[in-house]
Amino acid sequence: SWVRQMRKHTLLIVYFLIQTSLLVVAPRLVKSFIMSLLTIGTVAFDALETPYGKTDKIIGGSCTYIALSSAFFLPRVNVVAVVGDDFPQPYMEMLTSKGINLDGLQIKAGEKSFFWAGKYHNNMNSRDTLVTDLNVLADFKPEIPSSYQDCEYLMLGNLTPQVQIEAIQGLNKRPKLVVMDTMNFWMDVAMDDLKRVLTMVDVLCINDEEARQLSEQYSLRTAAKMIMAMGPKTLIIKKGEHGALLFQGDRMFYCPALPLEDVFDPTGAGDTFVGGFIGYLAKTDDISFENMRRAIVHGSAMASFCVEKFGTERLFEITEADLASRVNEFRELASF
Amino acid sequence: SWVRQMRKHTLLIVYFLIQTSLLVVAPRLVKSFIMSLLTIGTVAFDALETPYGKTDKIIGGSCTYIALSSAFFLPRVNVVAVVGDDFPQPYMEMLTSKGINLDGLQIKAGEKSFFWAGKYHNNMNSRDTLVTDLNVLADFKPEIPSSYQDCEYLMLGNLTPQVQIEAIQGLNKRPKLVVMDTMNFWMDVAMDDLKRVLTMVDVLCINDEEARQLSEQYSLRTAAKMIMAMGPKTLIIKKGEHGALLFQGDRMFYCPALPLEDVFDPTGAGDTFVGGFIGYLAKTDDISFENMRRAIVHGSAMASFCVEKFGTERLFEITEADLASRVNEFRELASF
Repeated sequence: SWVRQMRKHTLLIVYFLIQTSLLVVAPRLVKSFIMSLLTIGTVAFDALETPYGKTDKIIGGSCTYIALSSAFFLPRVNVVAVVGDDFPQPYMEMLTSKGINLDGLQIKAGEKSFFWAGKYHNNMNSRDTLVTDLNVLADFKPEIPSSYQDCEYLMLGNLTPQVQIEAIQGLNKRPKLVVMDTMNFWMDVAMDDLKRVLTMVDVLCINDEEARQLSEQYSLRTAAKMIMAMGPKTLIIKKGEHGALLFQGDRMFYCPALPLEDVFDPTGAGDTFVGGFIGYLAKTDDISFENMRRAIVHGSAMASFCVEKFGTERLFEITEADLASRVNEFRELASF
Repeated sequence: SWVRQMRKHTLLIVYFLIQTSLLVVAPRLVKSFIMSLLTIGTVAFDALETPYGKTDKIIGGSCTYIALSSAFFLPRVNVVAVVGDDFPQPYMEMLTSKGINLDGLQIKAGEKSFFWAGKYHNNMNSRDTLVTDLNVLADFKPEIPSSYQDCEYLMLGNLTPQVQIEAIQGLNKRPKLVVMDTMNFWMDVAMDDLKRVLTMVDVLCINDEEARQLSEQYSLRTAAKMIMAMGPKTLIIKKGEHGALLFQGDRMFYCPALPLEDVFDPTGAGDTFVGGFIGYLAKTDDISFENMRRAIVHGSAMASFCVEKFGTERLFEITEADLASRVNEFRELASF
């Protein structure tokens, strides 16, 4: 009877433990499945020339790089963008094969996709824009499919600030985290709109020159303070071959860039970086500063792959093992 | 009798243990006292102008900054340099009060000390040289006092490559580690001599532009390979506000620079950095790559203090607690 009593208790305890585990694990499993990322930006054609060669029209655009990079971390990435009917079906199939949902991609009949052509100089740090044909982008009105409405993570790729505002306003529920990319061009032509978007986002991602232009401060630490006072509680400053800085309140993180023997084509590196950043955050569903540090490292690792080949080519090849090994290289690089 | 026997044995064992400890510890104690660092370079007057103000003639020179920074880690730093008889006694006393041994400082009667005047632009990254009066430096012949002969660590501050060669040749015994600083000027006017010094040193410390000029390569990783093939097994590439890279064989370390709100005066930051690097190595007497990582961080921390005030002023103020706290800031900045 004493033995039976014990057995009964043991069974109860085991039953209770299983029950508790299910209660803890099940919502996580469901959450990891539906944890959704919405990204808006450009899907476009690029023609590139670097010291290593030149390309014809290849797939490009901020949204393309962001989606490809973040889709590496997530089963699905929802896209809102616009192309003309010149955009080839095989390109779209390549994107959907990577888990990129194109339900929100508008295809404008009889119109042409956005086209950018650029030429990089020997040091890869400066480039000339040869062609900018806005085409369909000129009157782009973002439309958010109802199936995208529950998105928890919103990535605003580089676009007219007005369109970024419309994207935020097009959502019924404010996402858990809104990350925004922009560029000096919008500071020159649409500063008021830009400042309005800044009050609506959580994280701003710009490069060092843009941070200096936006804040009118040379010191990046002072610039960061001023920019965070404009709205975003978190600021990422990209410094290209010098890495990236993350600021939040008084906290700072400096992620070095991996010194590479050859940078083949820097196009899309910034978008790939921020795509990896938000993809990692959405995957781990943890927006603490400590996790953002790791997200920056994963974004940097993705960007370090991106520049190894022309356009998006390298992003289609890399495996989880490649990424894990590259993240280890960053760890080795920065540890002391 | 059995008890007496045991007691005798125990005493013998204890005696043996004490003996052994002394044999192990004593040479280390002696070594840590005499572990000597010799630095050669310029001791000079500087007149500086930055956006924050301007100075009259103040103490400067590569050797001054290196000695002040490395003396922070060591009881004594030996100096070989030359000044004119215009160099004020109080300045020398300030240096000796910090443990800097001036037995090797030549004072040339009737001559003037080296003088440099410069003006920094708003972003502090570029400067104009206003005056360069070589004076005593024009015919400097390094003379190494016999008391310096046993030096284990040799720091060749920025000087004519020919003088750096004479310094190495002036030592009877090759030091454990020879670290060398130089600059683009010598690449322009004395490349052959410079390449000869490179075959004689262990560590070269230059900035990113200089690394690109010396290797004729844009990628710093490729540049590092080529420069290490010229002689030094270890290469440090200083990148100013972007931090510093350390290369040795296939290994790399990237130490970020601490983003500062104000850089008051960047003069001497590079010398302070390399002085802290070799000072830390000499203090710990460990030239492994892992310890060099920590040495780079300590050098960066020293440099981050240097730029907070004009000239060498800040280097006279900082305490061990200041340094420990700054090194912690670097750790916080880089960890993920």
